[in-house]
Amino acid sequence: MVKSKAAVAFAPGKPLEIVEIDVAEPKAKEVMVKILYTSVCHTDAFTLSGDDPEGVFPAVLGHEGAGVVVSVGEEVTSVKPGDHVIPLYTAECGECKFCLSGKTNLCSAVRETQGKGVMPDGTTRFSYNGEPIYHYMGTSTFSEYTVVNEINLVKIDEEAPLDKVALFGCGVTTGLGAVKNTAKVEEGAVTAVFGLGAIGLAVIQGLKKANAKRIIAVDTNPRKWALAKKMGATDFVNPKEFDRPIQEVLVEMTDGGVDYSFECIGNVDVMRSALEACHKGWGESIIIGVAGAGKEISTRPFQLVTGRVWRGSAFGGVKGRTELPGMVEDFMNGEIDLESFITGQLDFEEINRAFDWLHQGESIRTILTYEGAEATDES
Amino acid sequence: MVKSKAAVAFAPGKPLEIVEIDVAEPKAKEVMVKILYTSVCHTDAFTLSGDDPEGVFPAVLGHEGAGVVVSVGEEVTSVKPGDHVIPLYTAECGECKFCLSGKTNLCSAVRETQGKGVMPDGTTRFSYNGEPIYHYMGTSTFSEYTVVNEINLVKIDEEAPLDKVALFGCGVTTGLGAVKNTAKVEEGAVTAVFGLGAIGLAVIQGLKKANAKRIIAVDTNPRKWALAKKMGATDFVNPKEFDRPIQEVLVEMTDGGVDYSFECIGNVDVMRSALEACHKGWGESIIIGVAGAGKEISTRPFQLVTGRVWRGSAFGGVKGRTELPGMVEDFMNGEIDLESFITGQLDFEEINRAFDWLHQGESIRTILTYEGAEATDES
Repeated sequence: MVKSKAAVAFAPGKPLEIVEIDVAEPKAKEVMVKILYTSVCHTDAFTLSGDDPEGVFPAVLGHEGAGVVVSVGEEVTSVKPGDHVIPLYTAECGECKFCLSGKTNLCSAVRETQGKGVMPDGTTRFSYNGEPIYHYMGTSTFSEYTVVNEINLVKIDEEAPLDKVALFGCGVTTGLGAVKNTAKVEEGAVTAVFGLGAIGLAVIQGLKKANAKRIIAVDTNPRKWALAKKMGATDFVNPKEFDRPIQEVLVEMTDGGVDYSFECIGNVDVMRSALEACHKGWGESIIIGVAGAGKEISTRPFQLVTGRVWRGSAFGGVKGRTELPGMVEDFMNGEIDLESFITGQLDFEEINRAFDWLHQGESIRTILTYEGAEATDES
Repeated sequence: MVKSKAAVAFAPGKPLEIVEIDVAEPKAKEVMVKILYTSVCHTDAFTLSGDDPEGVFPAVLGHEGAGVVVSVGEEVTSVKPGDHVIPLYTAECGECKFCLSGKTNLCSAVRETQGKGVMPDGTTRFSYNGEPIYHYMGTSTFSEYTVVNEINLVKIDEEAPLDKVALFGCGVTTGLGAVKNTAKVEEGAVTAVFGLGAIGLAVIQGLKKANAKRIIAVDTNPRKWALAKKMGATDFVNPKEFDRPIQEVLVEMTDGGVDYSFECIGNVDVMRSALEACHKGWGESIIIGVAGAGKEISTRPFQLVTGRVWRGSAFGGVKGRTELPGMVEDFMNGEIDLESFITGQLDFEEINRAFDWLHQGESIRTILTYEGAEATDES
C-alpha cells in the first residue's frame, strides 16, 4: 500500500479535492505508475459535471499523463520499474477479436470493467479512509501513484520529456490519428476543422503534415485563430458572422464542399454541419467530439446517397502500444509540435484552476506537475 | 416528329394514361431510342404518387428499359441507328469534376436540367396536343420513342436479349454495384440486407459473388424468402417476429454485428437499424433506398465514434457507360442471374397492372413489352 496525493472527484458537479489516498500494489498483469505530469481534457470535465451516464463517484479522474513505472504485478513482461510510460485509455491486448481484426484500435479486453471504474477483478486499487475510490478510463492520472493494466500502458523513449509527451495520452494523438488513420487524408485535399481545442488543433497539424491544400478552421472564438494558423490553418470562418447554415458558407467557399471535415467539439448540430459541408460524391466527415448523453445526429439520407461518408474516430484510430513510441520519436525529431498546445503550467494541487481555464476557453492544455517531477524525470 | 405510344403521368396520384404523343427529333448530342422493353421500379411509383418534391407533371416516367437507336442528333459519335442501348439515369460525360475525380459516378453534366424534366436546352422533346410533356430521370422509358442525351446512353452487345438486360437500367446494377463499388465487400464477410425487392435481391446476388460468409435477409414479407435464398441468402429474419429492435437481434445472431449492411427500402427507421446492426470497430452500412421527402436519419454519434461507417450508394456507384457493357457480358457468361428477377410479363398497355403488382409486394420486376418488340430485337 502506497500513500498518494490525489485529486478526487467525490461527487458530480463539485471541484476536485486534493487528499491523500491509499493505492494498493498492482495485482497480476497490473502496473503501478508514478505520474509526473498530467493535463486536463474536456472529457474529464464532462464526467465531473455529472452528465456522463457512465460516470461513477468517488473517482480519480485524469487520462492524459506520463510517468515512471514503480512496480509491476505478476505476469507483467513488457515494462519494468524505471521505464517511462504513457497510460492509455484505449488498451491494446493484441489478442482480442478487435485487435486481431486489423481494422480498429478498439480493444475489447478490459472494456467492460474499465467502463465501470474497476480493475478486471472487479475491485479498485484506490481507497480513502478505507472506502474504495473508483478508477477512470483505465488511467486515473489525477493521482501521484496509479495502477493500470499492462495493456493500458506504453513504454516510450527515456529521452523524451515527459511534460510534453504526456499530451500523447489523448488530444494530440486523437487529432493526428483521425487524419492519418481514420480519414487517410491525401495530398492536396480541401478540409475543414470544426472546433479549435486541442483535438482540432492537432487535426490541423495532422492535415498540414498530410499536405492538405486548404485547412479551414471553424470556431466561434476568434482568439483561437492565431494558434490554428501556427498549426497550419489556411482559412478562418466564424459561424457567428453568418446568418445562414455554416455548411452553405463552406460549400460556397470551396466550390462544392470539402473533401474531409472533422468535428472536434461534441455538438450534434455541428456534426450535421460538418457532414453537409462535404463535397457531393466523395466528401467524408469524421466525428471526434463526444456528444452529451442521449444526443443524436441527424441528416437527410440523400446526403449519404449522393456520396458523402459519415465516420467517427476514437483515440484517432491509434493502437497506443504499437504506434505511440513512433509518435514520440516523431516529436523528438521535430516532426510534431507539442509545445504549442501547452498554454499554461500549474502545480498539481492547483488542478481546479486548470478546469476553470478550460471552461473559460482560454487554455488549450495546462500541464500539471506533481511535486518532485522534474527531479524524477531527469533521474 | 414521330408519333409514339406512351404511358403519360398527367397528374400525381392518378393512373398512367396510354396516349399517342409526339416526339421531336433529337437535337445536338441527343439520341432517339425506340424502347422495346421497360419495367417499373418503386422510384417511378414514388414520383407518380406526388410525394417526390422534384416530380413534375405531365411527364413520361420510366427509367429501366432497353431499346434500339432510331436516329441521332448532331455531334453524336458513340452510337448510331440500329445500336442496342440501355438508357442511363446517371449520365457519364467523362469530362466534369465528378467524372474526372475517380471517386464517384455522379456526373454533373446534365444534372440540373434532368432534375427539372427538360433537356439541356431547357425544352422537352415530348408533346401531347401541342402541349409539352416533361422528361423523367433523363430516360423516360414509358414511351415507345424517347429522346435522351448521348451521355445518358450506353451501347451494349447486340447479342444480349433486351428483355433481360433492360433490368441493368436500375435495380440490378444498383444492388450489384453497391456491394462491389460502394461497400467493396471482401470474402468471408458477415452481411445483412434489409428489404427484398429487386435491389435487395441484387445486393444478395452481389454478396454471393463476393463470397460473403453469411447473408442475412431481413424482410417482413416471408414470401420473398424463397427468391432471396435462390439468390444466395443464408439466413432469414422477420422483424415482426421480435418485440425488440431488429438491430439487437442481428448483433446477437452475429456475435457483435455484421461487417456490412444494406438498406434497400427507403425507410429512415430501417436505415438506423441497419447502421446499428453493424459491428463495432468496422461495420459499414450502405443506404440505397430513397426516403420520402423531408425524412431524416438519426443515431447516437457514439455509433460512429466506435467505428461504424455510414455510406450511401446511387446506381451502385456504377459509371454506366464504362461499366454496363461488362455487366452485360457477365450476364451473357452466366455470371449474373437476371431471369429470377422477372416475376411477370405484360404488354406495355397494361402498365398500370405492373404498378399494382409492385404495390401489392407480389412482384419483383414485371417486363413490359412494346408492340413488335420481339421482331425488332431479333432483327
